[in-house]
Amino acid sequence: MPKSFELPDVSGAVLGVLGGTGDLGRGLAARFAAAGQQVLLGSRDRERAVAAVDTLPLGDKEKVRGLDNIECARSADVVLVAVPWEGHAALLEECREALDGKVVIDCVNPLGFDERGAFALPVPEGSACLQAQQLLPGSRVVGAFHHVSAVVLLDPEVQSLELDVMVVGDDREATDTVQALASRLPGVRGIYAGRLRSSGQVEALTANLISVNRRHRAHAGIRVTGL
Amino acid sequence: MPKSFELPDVSGAVLGVLGGTGDLGRGLAARFAAAGQQVLLGSRDRERAVAAVDTLPLGDKEKVRGLDNIECARSADVVLVAVPWEGHAALLEECREALDGKVVIDCVNPLGFDERGAFALPVPEGSACLQAQQLLPGSRVVGAFHHVSAVVLLDPEVQSLELDVMVVGDDREATDTVQALASRLPGVRGIYAGRLRSSGQVEALTANLISVNRRHRAHAGIRVTGL
Repeated sequence: MPKSFELPDVSGAVLGVLGGTGDLGRGLAARFAAAGQQVLLGSRDRERAVAAVDTLPLGDKEKVRGLDNIECARSADVVLVAVPWEGHAALLEECREALDGKVVIDCVNPLGFDERGAFALPVPEGSACLQAQQLLPGSRVVGAFHHVSAVVLLDPEVQSLELDVMVVGDDREATDTVQALASRLPGVRGIYAGRLRSSGQVEALTANLISVNRRHRAHAGIRVTGL
Repeated sequence: MPKSFELPDVSGAVLGVLGGTGDLGRGLAARFAAAGQQVLLGSRDRERAVAAVDTLPLGDKEKVRGLDNIECARSADVVLVAVPWEGHAALLEECREALDGKVVIDCVNPLGFDERGAFALPVPEGSACLQAQQLLPGSRVVGAFHHVSAVVLLDPEVQSLELDVMVVGDDREATDTVQALASRLPGVRGIYAGRLRSSGQVEALTANLISVNRRHRAHAGIRVTGL
């Protein structure tokens, strides 16, 4: 990508992962620790967060600390939200004050499942990201990491992820920060892909990738071509 | 991709392109003609369709014939819908009988544009594809080719397109046919990506790709990784 798109140095940023005991949260925590980032892994229950750190299949565990969600939100510089959709609104309301002024990365996919597979759930606010921005008016919400497979993240055999992370948001400094963070993972490019109003389809596309996975027994991701 | 996903031979299928005088329609007609397919290029006005054939920047023009939309729909085996969103419903209603029993490939993106760029328009039926299936109950509607850039298609310097076409639909034989057609274009894989209920986000994602294009002065496409 051209020189004008140089991204900030985020190697010193402390990354918090809310809902860090789930597969996606653990996978992202492990990958960022492996990339040299300081990571705080948050859970409703501090004990469970501490225990989850020991289960990380890769990354330097010294780089990861388990905390309860609110302490995690308070102590991190940039905060990833990786809870199931069902717990999304309640968690954000609970952490509102602790997240004030921070870059909040929402990677939650509002999906339902039936015998035909996954499908996008309607969200009154338009998307998980838009719900987050509405619940956290003092935070800078950015959508990212929707299409990364937890299975791939947690597989220590996978050295390079070989996919792009679509980054959506309304605040340029915040999207630059998240692009830079994503790009720290081997084989990943963080690519700006529009404003929050265009976050719904990025989240919903995960249903399509799950259809690909079902047909091909794969863990599909996305690359943006032509850059 | 594994052997069980072998696709049908569609080299003999006559492909119709409704709205074939627009950039996307001309681009697809030219690329399919270059790939050896017989193509019927349809327009509201037969004269304009015939004239458009002469403007194709690549592909054997002997393979392409200009017709009015209804004659195009009637004479083709598989029909691509490449009209602007504004004309989508009216065109399909007009061609309903001629499209009966056929595989109809909808590649229309319901997008609006303002000073901030492109955004997905709400569609009462859920998506252009779902609207098409509702208007054409006797046809087998498949969504595809949403993310291909007309500029790239029409550039004779581009030999290989280097992107994937996400194919969505409820009829396996129809989606197999469209995957096979897409895969005839050099550098393209047609990939099954879910049912029609998951077509809205595929269409809307084009707004995100337009954001990528604006930031990078690019013509972005999509590859599905992990297959």
